[in-house]
Amino acid sequence: MWLDNLVVPSFLQVLEFIGTFAFAISGIRLASAKEFDWFGAYVVGVSTAIGGGTIRDLLLGVPTFWMTNPIYLICSGLALLWMILFGKVLIHLNNTFFVFDSIGLALFTVVGVEKSLDLGFPLWVAVVMGAITGAAGGVIRDVFINEIPLIFRKEIYAIACVMGGLIYGFCLYCGFNIVVTQCISGSVVFLIRLVVVKYEICLPILKHS
Amino acid sequence: MWLDNLVVPSFLQVLEFIGTFAFAISGIRLASAKEFDWFGAYVVGVSTAIGGGTIRDLLLGVPTFWMTNPIYLICSGLALLWMILFGKVLIHLNNTFFVFDSIGLALFTVVGVEKSLDLGFPLWVAVVMGAITGAAGGVIRDVFINEIPLIFRKEIYAIACVMGGLIYGFCLYCGFNIVVTQCISGSVVFLIRLVVVKYEICLPILKHS
Amino acid sequence: MWLDNLVVPSFLQVLEFIGTFAFAISGIRLASAKEFDWFGAYVVGVSTAIGGGTIRDLLLGVPTFWMTNPIYLICSGLALLWMILFGKVLIHLNNTFFVFDSIGLALFTVVGVEKSLDLGFPLWVAVVMGAITGAAGGVIRDVFINEIPLIFRKEIYAIACVMGGLIYGFCLYCGFNIVVTQCISGSVVFLIRLVVVKYEICLPILKHS
Repeated sequence: MWLDNLVVPSFLQVLEFIGTFAFAISGIRLASAKEFDWFGAYVVGVSTAIGGGTIRDLLLGVPTFWMTNPIYLICSGLALLWMILFGKVLIHLNNTFFVFDSIGLALFTVVGVEKSLDLGFPLWVAVVMGAITGAAGGVIRDVFINEIPLIFRKEIYAIACVMGGLIYGFCLYCGFNIVVTQCISGSVVFLIRLVVVKYEICLPILKHS
Repeated sequence: MWLDNLVVPSFLQVLEFIGTFAFAISGIRLASAKEFDWFGAYVVGVSTAIGGGTIRDLLLGVPTFWMTNPIYLICSGLALLWMILFGKVLIHLNNTFFVFDSIGLALFTVVGVEKSLDLGFPLWVAVVMGAITGAAGGVIRDVFINEIPLIFRKEIYAIACVMGGLIYGFCLYCGFNIVVTQCISGSVVFLIRLVVVKYEICLPILKHS
Repeated sequence: MWLDNLVVPSFLQVLEFIGTFAFAISGIRLASAKEFDWFGAYVVGVSTAIGGGTIRDLLLGVPTFWMTNPIYLICSGLALLWMILFGKVLIHLNNTFFVFDSIGLALFTVVGVEKSLDLGFPLWVAVVMGAITGAAGGVIRDVFINEIPLIFRKEIYAIACVMGGLIYGFCLYCGFNIVVTQCISGSVVFLIRLVVVKYEICLPILKHS
């Protein structure tokens, strides 16, 4: 289990659980807007939560992370249960879920970068893998609900992952401790995401030619 | 070839050929409704037939099954030929193809579960792999024809695979012979699918919040 | 690096750079028509350029080619820069880009066929891998922009790859030198594509039943 490589596993596992839950909720919410049944909503939720890490592991050529521990599938199941029971309550919790989602994004990015570096890949590959871990689940979600992926048009999302990955490399280059590096890198992802949403910062649209 | 591990290979190979043919037909029919050309229809057909097993093999980290034997590509080609020659006849054969498709679903599920257990994965992974083997091809088909996957909204399909996988594990736990286990598990998938379609049983739709 | 196996690497690398650039441009152009932002356009462009080879490498069970050399990501970045700066100029360059795109298709096909044969796969697998290397990137592009894949409905594209792959095998069977084989096979792909577009040759549409 790669989590064994991380310091303070219990705290990180709690964060990872929160991130998985928040990612699954984002998938299930969008699925419910398309009148998916419970099973379909679950598949979209679980794909959002584990899709990025699955693509990363396939590209890195290592065993798929969620097949070593059922916690990810269980966590997505709890997210479905939550939405069935408290779906309407959720409307008032938008900000809370946005924070959770951003925590998930930050953590997934750090995990993706670290796992790639541990396997001996160069930093530029690790940065790409961090972005894929954080953002590819949302792309799969949008393909499943038959929409153009949100992150391609409106949201600065994967850019936050890329910045976090570059900062990760910079901290390592400066000789920082691994825990400090993880905290700084994750915080950068989290803060960029917060600032970007609060000030509605967008990337330029590519003009149609 | 994993089929060597199965008892009575000749009978199972006939079933597998029928299942592949039926899955390919389902892809080609939906492609024809979107005015795909012959090549496009073939790609959709073959993806429906082998897509689930391909994803399973990538996740399990083993060689892709259809690359060891051209029978799957040939079988999908015969399905295309059938549709070109007898497309209109097919309308009267809906029930026949539904039975073939259900046989394919049952067989693919059993093969997916067994292959995963043979590789030493725990039962819960094998159940997921059985469902992926049976149902993921249809998801790829619907992504290619640019529709929301049918199994996410209307049909109890993957649930039948999941039930079949659980029964498989239960039979093994009871100490049943492998052939008996396969027959019971496959029959459960087949019968659930039949009952569900006959009585138009649906899962609840997730309410939009 | 697989390019080491090819003769005259410098010339081939130039061709490969041109092909990657042309494929990335085709993705970025279609993304700009859907009002993607710069990042989204880049992801679609890079997926078009490296998607086919990535799927091939996953199926073959070998390390993903673009993770060994950042040139592919850089080349796609240059394509994005080109489109941002000279997007409108491009309209007058349609024919030029069509030629580049066809060069890319021919080269990607040859690379896919050769890599598969080098790994010991039979010719029919190599032909399929050549077609996937050449054509699957365009399918991913069309899924991302939420359109039915172009090659399934209008264009003879993958068929050119299949023909090129078969000719490759025929040349090897005749005992031709590897460089001659590559040149003949690539030329066949290039010429079929040219003839097909010039004379607007289409495959028959499958009738809806």
